[in-house]
Amino acid sequence: MEATDIEHSLVIEGEFDALSIEVKAPNSLHIGVAKKFPAKSNARKVAKALGARDGIIFLPGQWNMNWEDSDQGPPFRQRRYFYYLTGVNFPGCSVTYDIEADKLTIWIPYTAPSTILWFGNTPGPEECLARSDVHDVQYSNKLSEYLASRLAKVKTLYVLRPSQMPKFAEFDNLKPRLLIDTASLQPVMDEARVIKSEYEIEMIRKANAVSSEAHKRVAMSMYGLLNECEIEASFLSSCTAQNAHTQAYPIIAGSGPNASTLHYDANNQPLAGRELLVLDAGAEWDCYASDITRTLPVGSTFSPEARAIYDLVHQMQEECIQHIRPGVVFRDLHLHATLVAVKGLLRLGILHNGTADEIFKHGTGSAFFPHGLGHHVGLDVHDVLSRDLLRPAGESMWGKRRPIGPSSLRAMVKQAMAGNANVDDATTASGDRQWNTLRPNMIVTVEPGLYFCRPYIEAYLLRSNQHKNYVNQAVLERYWGVGGVRVEDCILVTDDGFENLTTAPKGAELLRILGVQH
Amino acid sequence: MEATDIEHSLVIEGEFDALSIEVKAPNSLHIGVAKKFPAKSNARKVAKALGARDGIIFLPGQWNMNWEDSDQGPPFRQRRYFYYLTGVNFPGCSVTYDIEADKLTIWIPYTAPSTILWFGNTPGPEECLARSDVHDVQYSNKLSEYLASRLAKVKTLYVLRPSQMPKFAEFDNLKPRLLIDTASLQPVMDEARVIKSEYEIEMIRKANAVSSEAHKRVAMSMYGLLNECEIEASFLSSCTAQNAHTQAYPIIAGSGPNASTLHYDANNQPLAGRELLVLDAGAEWDCYASDITRTLPVGSTFSPEARAIYDLVHQMQEECIQHIRPGVVFRDLHLHATLVAVKGLLRLGILHNGTADEIFKHGTGSAFFPHGLGHHVGLDVHDVLSRDLLRPAGESMWGKRRPIGPSSLRAMVKQAMAGNANVDDATTASGDRQWNTLRPNMIVTVEPGLYFCRPYIEAYLLRSNQHKNYVNQAVLERYWGVGGVRVEDCILVTDDGFENLTTAPKGAELLRILGVQH
Repeated sequence: MEATDIEHSLVIEGEFDALSIEVKAPNSLHIGVAKKFPAKSNARKVAKALGARDGIIFLPGQWNMNWEDSDQGPPFRQRRYFYYLTGVNFPGCSVTYDIEADKLTIWIPYTAPSTILWFGNTPGPEECLARSDVHDVQYSNKLSEYLASRLAKVKTLYVLRPSQMPKFAEFDNLKPRLLIDTASLQPVMDEARVIKSEYEIEMIRKANAVSSEAHKRVAMSMYGLLNECEIEASFLSSCTAQNAHTQAYPIIAGSGPNASTLHYDANNQPLAGRELLVLDAGAEWDCYASDITRTLPVGSTFSPEARAIYDLVHQMQEECIQHIRPGVVFRDLHLHATLVAVKGLLRLGILHNGTADEIFKHGTGSAFFPHGLGHHVGLDVHDVLSRDLLRPAGESMWGKRRPIGPSSLRAMVKQAMAGNANVDDATTASGDRQWNTLRPNMIVTVEPGLYFCRPYIEAYLLRSNQHKNYVNQAVLERYWGVGGVRVEDCILVTDDGFENLTTAPKGAELLRILGVQH
Repeated sequence: MEATDIEHSLVIEGEFDALSIEVKAPNSLHIGVAKKFPAKSNARKVAKALGARDGIIFLPGQWNMNWEDSDQGPPFRQRRYFYYLTGVNFPGCSVTYDIEADKLTIWIPYTAPSTILWFGNTPGPEECLARSDVHDVQYSNKLSEYLASRLAKVKTLYVLRPSQMPKFAEFDNLKPRLLIDTASLQPVMDEARVIKSEYEIEMIRKANAVSSEAHKRVAMSMYGLLNECEIEASFLSSCTAQNAHTQAYPIIAGSGPNASTLHYDANNQPLAGRELLVLDAGAEWDCYASDITRTLPVGSTFSPEARAIYDLVHQMQEECIQHIRPGVVFRDLHLHATLVAVKGLLRLGILHNGTADEIFKHGTGSAFFPHGLGHHVGLDVHDVLSRDLLRPAGESMWGKRRPIGPSSLRAMVKQAMAGNANVDDATTASGDRQWNTLRPNMIVTVEPGLYFCRPYIEAYLLRSNQHKNYVNQAVLERYWGVGGVRVEDCILVTDDGFENLTTAPKGAELLRILGVQH
């Protein structure tokens, strides 16, 4: 048994505050080892990866913040690295992990009675211990004493970055004898976070279940809705009523041409006369994200153009999902989706004057599928190491928010052809290849899309006669109204394949719910 | 006619971006002088209050921001002082007002095609001119040239604060000859903003209409709801479906004891067995806030204790609202509400062993009504100069978020008795009195409440034998379950009285909708 001592001594601050305070009963929902946040396990994983035998890891959590010139602020959002070591989701805490002693301690603020009146009681030590698997929970007023004593004895202090140094009077005197490491923590925490624990998988599964239910309800009520804002309202309401109060990212409810804006968020246009609606929305559950997109026909009829693109994007997605297993290079899935798209667009006559292979290798596909196939999902919706999942070797600037243009696409094709000829082993730590390869317990989105964004495509085609030659502009003209189609699920990589964590209806099942002829 | 020239020259940034861009048709909803944001009028009001004949006012708007370690961020929130001079609600803009030339110019970013694909098109010059009454809209790439030329000629540059200085190469050379005033703008803008224009009143009325409708819908669906989260969901859904996508502050849906937490926001507890629910929630409309609270019985029966407190708080509110007219000192309304509360609590037996006057003057009332009666509402929910509305003379630390304890209450009583004996004229600019007095076209909340927050009240009573003596703890024991009651409306001060902008049902009307016996 590990020793667990709760410190109850009270801090006296201001009027009315020098009083004993009722300790609330631990929330029974969080009791039970299986449900506890595995903070110790996460801390040990990080310490092991640091290769350190002694030292203190110190991370401050987030405080409440106000907007400029305001006594209000954005919703509280806990620092993700801090949460990973604590499972604590309220402001003003910090955490220490003493590596040699294997002692993980959460430091929490004391809530004064006047603050209870204003903001309610924040969890006390017993609640924190019931919720998170840690060795100790202490009030923050004891933190500087603890740090002064431990930092006088250990060799190394690990912090995430220079701005997150501990702040207390004696620290300046201790600094000269300490090795302060501000660089090692983030990379090892990223590598720990990218492989999800059973607890994390359960949370992300729950976030997906809540959001899938909300997507289903939107579909079921679709024909009563007249404006994008009502789609947003329906999704939001359904998540909130399931006690998921935070969206993992801004809801995108874009109809018609708005569906071709990847991060559209105005959500204020009438649906009348539009063909399709892209709903990209996912709630958080206990800080863990989901990320789900469905495309819904707006009317009860379905134009041949809209239906063709709807089917093609589902095919792109389905084929990619079926390929998911450990060892697969994610870039190759992106290229597969692009090739399926090129073949489909050739069949539809939007592309012409070349073979699928020629057009694919020239990079024209990214005019219609201009973003990455997916990213990691975890404590962040675009979770750690997402930028390494698709980044072509040699490119340092990369990210979910960067369009994939023809030159990036051609670089990916070239690297795929070179790379796949030799190494294809996920465990090979060969620089750029290391984090582009799927491993068990990663969770990634698979979210292909095809878009008819006129300013973007016209700019694309004007840049090269060859792109222009491959595109049949007369046929393309009929597709502007389609706007865009995207389908997105969260996929868990298992030991021998995959599990789709997203249960929201899609494809033919979704069309049945909507009552659309298919 | 003022000259209006639109600059269409394009900025070339990165791949795909060197192309002409379709100018979207102005949104017809915003055409029509009456509906235009009165930016010129606001700018002229500010310049007049500055007492300046020449100089440039420069304000940068807000940019999109990301959370630490994330490619996501909080919802965009425009800087309120910037919005007041522009009516512009998208990122990356700035504004200049040339006082001598009377020329107000909005500077907007150019949207490149690759950005359109990612985030959609931000409004162009024509849309901005259609929406806001300004002299000119220019792309930001021309701003430094303009500033360099104008700042070489004028005497003074007005900025809100040192961190909001313009940033361009030649600025360092211009500084020595300029008077840079970083102090005058905020106070004169506060004094302009606190008196609302017709346009602003219309916006706040609309925000109140949307939110009042949402409060009504919550009441109508109340008996189907089982958890606080469903109340939040219902309110949120109703606002969003009316195209109000932003809440002016976090929704408070607190039942039972949670109703006694003033800024409760967990909203995740079952309603079963609770007596009352406090729903404090208001949406924004075009950046203007509403702020509305209703208290709803949870079951169809209404305990005598809950009903008594419900009625008493409505009486406190109604009497205060009826007193509203120009020249009234807001502090006196707060004291009136407190006196009504003390008399009511005496009738109920919660207070005893003294007359209403004695107990009132001793400050015991603030154990149950521990926050200010209200605040200004405008671009911020706690709008500019709210801290001066109730601040006792001589106290510098003050704000909506500060509890009113017995010593503050006694200071307010003393000052009311002294102050009301002589000056009672709203136009007298006599230091502390100036901004505690109501004037035409102010909009304030009137939001009395009575709370049974056990840790707070117990701390309060332990501090003084006299408070303890006035409270009958045996009777009080029966009221812990009531939790709290608050009722809040947004009240416009008119030339000869008031107009209640909040139309959400309350009091007996609300009980009828809920089907509660009254």
